[in-house]
Amino acid sequence: MAAERRTRLSPDERRAQLIALGVAFLVDRPLGELTIEDLAARADVSRGLVFHYFGSLQGLHLAVATRAGDALLEASAPVDDLPPRERLHDTLTRIVGFVRAYRGTFSSLVRGVASGDPVVRRVVDAVREANAERLRSVFVEDGAADSDLLRVTLRAWVSFAEEVLIELALDSDRDADEIVAFLERTVAGVVAAVEAPRR
Amino acid sequence: MAAERRTRLSPDERRAQLIALGVAFLVDRPLGELTIEDLAARADVSRGLVFHYFGSLQGLHLAVATRAGDALLEASAPVDDLPPRERLHDTLTRIVGFVRAYRGTFSSLVRGVASGDPVVRRVVDAVREANAERLRSVFVEDGAADSDLLRVTLRAWVSFAEEVLIELALDSDRDADEIVAFLERTVAGVVAAVEAPRR
Repeated sequence: MAAERRTRLSPDERRAQLIALGVAFLVDRPLGELTIEDLAARADVSRGLVFHYFGSLQGLHLAVATRAGDALLEASAPVDDLPPRERLHDTLTRIVGFVRAYRGTFSSLVRGVASGDPVVRRVVDAVREANAERLRSVFVEDGAADSDLLRVTLRAWVSFAEEVLIELALDSDRDADEIVAFLERTVAGVVAAVEAPRR
Repeated sequence: MAAERRTRLSPDERRAQLIALGVAFLVDRPLGELTIEDLAARADVSRGLVFHYFGSLQGLHLAVATRAGDALLEASAPVDDLPPRERLHDTLTRIVGFVRAYRGTFSSLVRGVASGDPVVRRVVDAVREANAERLRSVFVEDGAADSDLLRVTLRAWVSFAEEVLIELALDSDRDADEIVAFLERTVAGVVAAVEAPRR
């Protein structure tokens, strides 16, 4: 049965299956603990086949981190035709939902730097940057002056939000709407701080 | 001369010297790159002696990270008899000064998690926690209601401030007073967000 399934998967399908199993691993354990052996055992394939697809442990971690980051960005993709503040509310609501539905994936991403792998770190940074850019488009559309300080502020607020999500969405059962409202108030607060000196 | 210096140092002095050299290493390069060999060469002692003092590479990294964290906390120790907002201003001013004077030490601490060492990560987290506690005492003394959400918020704001300091104090030559004023406005903004629903 396993052999039959193996012969049926195309290389792309096999690779996707291995990555999906790697992302599933993150539900319980950090990315740094995922080994080639673990994944081979979970997929019921040889270590050599896993090496064939990813080249190295670093390659495997990179592929899994990339998929996990894409999953977060897809789950929280902004609905472009909503007005900016509603778009923010909707995106944050879906992020809180994602964090709670895929607890391990989120904490692996946030703590992903702990894998010590600079390549994985770049994936995590790219996800943060993408989220910061989405926020920037919300606030600029909502009337904030675009500036380098606004960009820095929103990038830093993404780190703020990650900590809040870990503490309030993962480590407490606080109401999701309350978490979203708090995140909305804090991001508005730091954006207002960018503008303050010009008032 | 080197042999003479070696015989003169007590074990405590030798250990302190090795740690100081390790912290100095951080000026140019991340902690993760500091090896036993590097440090032995810098101190002009044998690898065996370095092992004797720290037991392992992890032990060395832990000692260097702890010293670097203590240096940041000492350099920014609050002046207890200042009123809370002035104390905050003074502390933030000294943190910006520290970050610029010891660029590598600060970025090694902030990026210290990238060494992949959970023990180093705990040191870095303890420094963050200590900074968050200092902030909490400022705001509670200034009239904010103490709460779990306030604690989470200030802990998350420390991550926000780290990103801002990396971007504005390290990677730009922005005026220090401006950076301090921006940090003051943002922390006041997020603390106000904690209080908002009760108003």
